[in-house]
Parts: sequence; C-alpha cells; structure tokens
Amino acid sequence: MNIIKKTKMKCPLIHCITNYVTVNDVANVILACGASPIMADEINEVEEMQTNCNALVINIGTLNERTIHSMILAGNTANRLNHVVILDPVGAGATKFRTEIVFKLLNEIKFDVIKGNISEIKAIARIKGKTNGVDASSEDKINEGNINDVIELAKGLSNNTKAIIVITGAIDVISDGIKTYLIRNGHANMSMITGTGCMLAGIIAAYVSSNIDAKMEAVTNAVSAIGVCAETAIDELNDINKTASLKIGIIDQLAILTDETLKEKSNIESR
Amino acid sequence: MNIIKKTKMKCPLIHCITNYVTVNDVANVILACGASPIMADEINEVEEMQTNCNALVINIGTLNERTIHSMILAGNTANRLNHVVILDPVGAGATKFRTEIVFKLLNEIKFDVIKGNISEIKAIARIKGKTNGVDASSEDKINEGNINDVIELAKGLSNNTKAIIVITGAIDVISDGIKTYLIRNGHANMSMITGTGCMLAGIIAAYVSSNIDAKMEAVTNAVSAIGVCAETAIDELNDINKTASLKIGIIDQLAILTDETLKEKSNIESR
Amino acid sequence: MNIIKKTKMKCPLIHCITNYVTVNDVANVILACGASPIMADEINEVEEMQTNCNALVINIGTLNERTIHSMILAGNTANRLNHVVILDPVGAGATKFRTEIVFKLLNEIKFDVIKGNISEIKAIARIKGKTNGVDASSEDKINEGNINDVIELAKGLSNNTKAIIVITGAIDVISDGIKTYLIRNGHANMSMITGTGCMLAGIIAAYVSSNIDAKMEAVTNAVSAIGVCAETAIDELNDINKTASLKIGIIDQLAILTDETLKEKSNIESR
Repeated sequence: MNIIKKTKMKCPLIHCITNYVTVNDVANVILACGASPIMADEINEVEEMQTNCNALVINIGTLNERTIHSMILAGNTANRLNHVVILDPVGAGATKFRTEIVFKLLNEIKFDVIKGNISEIKAIARIKGKTNGVDASSEDKINEGNINDVIELAKGLSNNTKAIIVITGAIDVISDGIKTYLIRNGHANMSMITGTGCMLAGIIAAYVSSNIDAKMEAVTNAVSAIGVCAETAIDELNDINKTASLKIGIIDQLAILTDETLKEKSNIESR
Repeated sequence: MNIIKKTKMKCPLIHCITNYVTVNDVANVILACGASPIMADEINEVEEMQTNCNALVINIGTLNERTIHSMILAGNTANRLNHVVILDPVGAGATKFRTEIVFKLLNEIKFDVIKGNISEIKAIARIKGKTNGVDASSEDKINEGNINDVIELAKGLSNNTKAIIVITGAIDVISDGIKTYLIRNGHANMSMITGTGCMLAGIIAAYVSSNIDAKMEAVTNAVSAIGVCAETAIDELNDINKTASLKIGIIDQLAILTDETLKEKSNIESR
Repeated sequence: MNIIKKTKMKCPLIHCITNYVTVNDVANVILACGASPIMADEINEVEEMQTNCNALVINIGTLNERTIHSMILAGNTANRLNHVVILDPVGAGATKFRTEIVFKLLNEIKFDVIKGNISEIKAIARIKGKTNGVDASSEDKINEGNINDVIELAKGLSNNTKAIIVITGAIDVISDGIKTYLIRNGHANMSMITGTGCMLAGIIAAYVSSNIDAKMEAVTNAVSAIGVCAETAIDELNDINKTASLKIGIIDQLAILTDETLKEKSNIESR
C-alpha cells in the first residue's frame, strides 16, 4: 500500500483536542502529511466539528475539567460515525487525576489506536486490571533484553481494549493483539525535544484515516516515518545536539517524505 | 507612504485575543513588524489592557465560552477609544457555534478590517443576508475565472459592515467598498503551514494602527508583505517543500523587510 | 561549580504553570538544559504533580481566574516540600488585575527567585511599599548611568521578599540582598523575539533545582547562559535581524552549551 500517497490524495480532516504545549507542531505535522488539522475543544461545537471530520485525536497533555466533557462528546460522535479515534494518554500514571480520566475515556470511547510510552501504557494496563511482566525498574527503557515483556504488555492491552497499541521507545512496539511489529528507527535525541509523541499521534490519525482497510500498516508506517524523518534530520545537522533545529528538520522531512523513501529506510520487524 | 518604517517608528502595542495554536507565531510576526504584542484574554483585565494598547486582534481559532465575553468587552473598549480592531473569523461556517459567535461579534463590535479565506467570508456574508455570485464548488479557490464574483463579495460585505474586507487565496482581494485591490504574491505552500492567516491579521494590526490615515494602503501592504516574504523564503530553501523551514523563513524575511523591497516585489492590481 | 553538568546529571523535573504563548519554547529550553518539563495547571492534579517534581515555575503571561488557584496550591505544595519556586511576573503593572494577583502570589508563596524586566520588578517593589531611585523615564532601559539605582531596587526587593531578584535588561542585575552581580551578555535583538524572558525562568529553575547549595551561582549562570547562547546564535546567522532563526539558534546553543564555554564567554561583574 502507498500509505503516504493515499493520505495526500484523501486529505483527511483531523480534529484534535490536544494540549497547548505542542499544538502548533501537531498541526504542522498533520499538514506535512497532506492532511488538514482543526483544533477545537469547546463543548458547544465539538459534536458538529467531529461530524465534519475524518478522525479525532484526544491528547491529555494539559488536561483540564473544561475539556474532558468535550473529549467524551467528540469521542462518542466519532464512534457513532465510525471515524478513526486516537488516544495519546500523555502523563497517564503521573497523577491520580490523569489516570482516572484516562480510565473514564477508555470506558466511554472505543479507540482505534492508543499510543504512549511504556510508563503511560503500563498505567493504562494496570487500570484495566492487567498485571504484566515489565518490571518497574525498566519503566522508561525498552531494550532487547525486556522486549518480550513489552510485546506481551502491548498484546494484552490490545486484547483488552480492542485498540492497536503503540508503545514508543528505543524500540517501538505495535500490536493489534495478533500481529506485533517492532520498529527500530529514530534517534535518542528525539527525547530532547518536546512533542515528538504528540506529533506521532497526529501522523497516525492522518495515515490511518486515509487507509482504513490497512490500519496496522498505516500505524506501522506512521511510527517508522517519524523515526526515519528524525534520522535524516539528524544527518543534515552540523551538530546532532542542536535540538530546535532537529524539530524543524523532522517536520521538514515529513513534508517531503515519500512511500518509496520510507520503505527504503524503515526498519520493521514482524513478530 | 512608508508603511513599514512608520510601524517601526510608532511601535504600536497590539492586544490579541487569539487561539492557542498559532499564538507564538502571531506574537513573533508582530515583533518582526516592529510592533509589540500582548496576549491577554482574562475578562478582569482586557478593558484596562486594551486601553493601554493601540489595536485589537480578535481571532476565533480556538473559540470558547470563557473568552467570548473578553472579546466583546475588549472590542467595545477599542471602539470607544477609536483603536483599530481586526477580526479573523477562523473557521466561520464550520460549526453553527462559530457562525453565531461571529454574528454576535459583528453586531457588538465595529471592525476596521475583517480578514478571512473565501469560505469564512462567505459564511459572514450569508449571515448579513447577502447572496453572492461565488458558487459553492469554487469555495476554496479564487482564480482568474471567478475573480469578479469574489470582488463583488468583498465589496458587498464591506458596504454592509463598513470594514475593509480581505479575502485571502491564490489571488488576495481587498476592498473598502469603493476601491478594490488584487494581490498576486505568495506561494501555494503557504497553505502547508498552520497560521499564515493568523500571522497576516497580526501584520495588518501592526501596519494599520501605525498608519491610520492610510488604512487601505496599510492593509494592502500587509497582505503583499506576507506574500513577498513567503516568495523570498521559498527562494532560500534547498527544498521548497520543507514546511517548517518555510515558516521560519517567512518570519525572518518579515523582520528584515523594508518598504523599498516591498514596493519592488509586491504585485498589486487596482480594480 | 559545574552548574550545567550537574543539571544534566540530576535531570530535575520542572513543573510549569505558564502562559500559552511561549510554553513550547519554555519546554524545549528546559529539555535543552538536560532537565524535564511538565506543564500542568489543573487544580485537581497540581498538588500531586508538584509533589513528584523538583521545582515550580509560575508565569503569569496569560493569567486567568482558573489557573490562579492552581498556582497557589502548587506554590504551597512546593514550599512545604522545600522545592525551588520561580516567579516570572509577566506584565506586572500593566493592569490592576495582574498587579493584584502578583501581590497575592507574593503573600501566599515563598519564592526562591523572582525574575522580571525593570517595569515588572518596579511594579512588585511598589506593591511591597518600597520607593526606589529608578525614575519612570528610564523604565525600560538599564544603562551604565542608572545601574546603581537598579542595584538598589534589586537589593531592596530581595530583602523584602527573601528571594533572589533578577532584573533583565541591557545589563542584567542579580541580587540576593547581600551580593549583587551584573551580567553583560546577550544582544538587543533578543527583545525582537517573544519568550526569551519566559525561557530564562525555565533555565533558572533547571539550574537552581540541580544546584541548591549554590543558588546564586546557578541563577547567575542561567542569566549569562541565555545571553551567551544569543551571542553565538547571532554570530551564526547570515543576517542578524532574522528573528525566527535567532530563536532556533538560542535553543540550539543552549542544548550544546558546556560549563567550559559558559565560563569562557560569560561577562559577570561582582558588586
């Protein structure tokens, strides 16, 4: 499938209820994918806005009481209309409030994709009553040694939620409960800029809503795409630790990325 | 007139009640014009804040119940003090809520300039009971074929609202109901980055509030300025589709733009 | 002391309740320091969030009724736990509302560092009943002629608040009431981009919370660091007035800055 080409042809409208920290970057990556972003969180318009869109991204990065109701109403609308819905549970587990709200969102909305780092996904898995083999000490690091435990976590949560689970890290893990893919793209310096996770959720929404009969392929492409873009951006820097230039470079590369380049550079292992 | 030079000399204070998606870029373009931005949307301070400023930009990009009252109070204050007021009706027509709020703003505040894309301006024109010749199928594209209809739309809305109307597109149309100008500057890739419209509203506010006896010239200069900056920025890119670099380039070029360069590169047709 | 090295080793978690204009840049400079940012302003989670963090930055740039209570609760929590607390009183003095809220914050929270420009600091000093020798006409400019008055202002406010006072300007003044340092780094074009002050507050929080037994040295290093980064960034620009590139350059330079480079380039006078 030509995931990127199809995204540019369909130009889906992506409705985001997201945080105010990375919202500009998320809008720009959605545009770079050839999709169109609309950020709207007011309860009085989210139902109609979502009705006119193709996908919804819910990101709890700067969660507050006002927008929770908007998230649920938009999510219910998206579910009713069979629109793609992505959850980015930023900071789940960091406070009881966030964890409870994520629990509430998971109970009220059916998500197509849930994307988080290992700590966030573990917080969600605990909520769903799942105990798993990833020990606390490796909480922030996925490596070749604990990868099987992370795969089991992703599979288990996918079976519980019926969502495709994306766990981001040095190795990214994607599972729909049956198939699992490992992505070995990207660069450690991606964690030195804020918002690469939020941006990825936007890319996933753009790709998946344009390729609904190939959801897993679209998600896998999205995850490897941001990694490949970071690799190329790093290559073009005169100092790989220039973080602001890295962010600019990632968005630039995403805007010029083709399916051909992505296939050539992506490092995807099927498990 | 030396619109840019006068802006840098006057250094007007521009109060913006705007969206959280593009707010940083809007602040930076206002600074690049030689003006000074202040973003403040709390009802308890907008009256006093506006009193100390030279202009007001109302942008409904992430409209919510809390800030509507602030917009009206700030607008009323600006009107009472004869300050310049700009409306950027982002997404007007996209939801009933936005359309109703725009209607409310238009009823309660006298705007000097209303700037939108063709869809937004059509939504406003319909509100005001105006039917026009621009057919729905061409809604997002202004071209040489339908330009006369777009001019009539701008003229008519200007007569109804007493505001200068700016309709942005491949050809930008500016009308005060009597004179109309067409701007053929800019580049299609401007639509690949979020916020060029919001930025333009900021530039208009800076230029107009510094040149109040030459409002039409100031608006026309602002519209051609962002186009000229995008053209030069595109010329300096090693790949014209690098969108994040394009945004940086536009702000950079605006900061170094002079009246001389603008006159040389602007493509303005009087109708 | 190796202030930067220790920051990268400790990797403190910095909780920010800040404005939506410059929040992304603040997050990215905190990361560039080797620290970790978390932006959270919801009353239901700020106590728990602050408990898990090492420092708090309160920035009133887009102050509103909703977040004032969050600021106070987070501040009280930080004080109880002996966490570092920074106040960035953006626009203090611009409206009665802002000035009153700053007064309220100062009464309810003990700050380790208060950082503002001369107008903001004067507004705070007036609140505390202090009259000072800096005359109104020099309000926005610190120069060699009035520097002694500015030093007295900083010293006096430090004695009143028990906070380290940072007054930013062409010459930056830092005082803990006993020692005073003057920093002559930076470039006038820093005022042509929004957020350098907000970014500095983030850097101060990162450095101070990683070097709590050398607070004055950490603050002094933070103030000279952003100036040194701006100088180097300006040197690398092909046109020093390209403001968007300057902002990118400052963050880039901060990410690669070492204690050695900082010592070599910083211009610090002890008074």
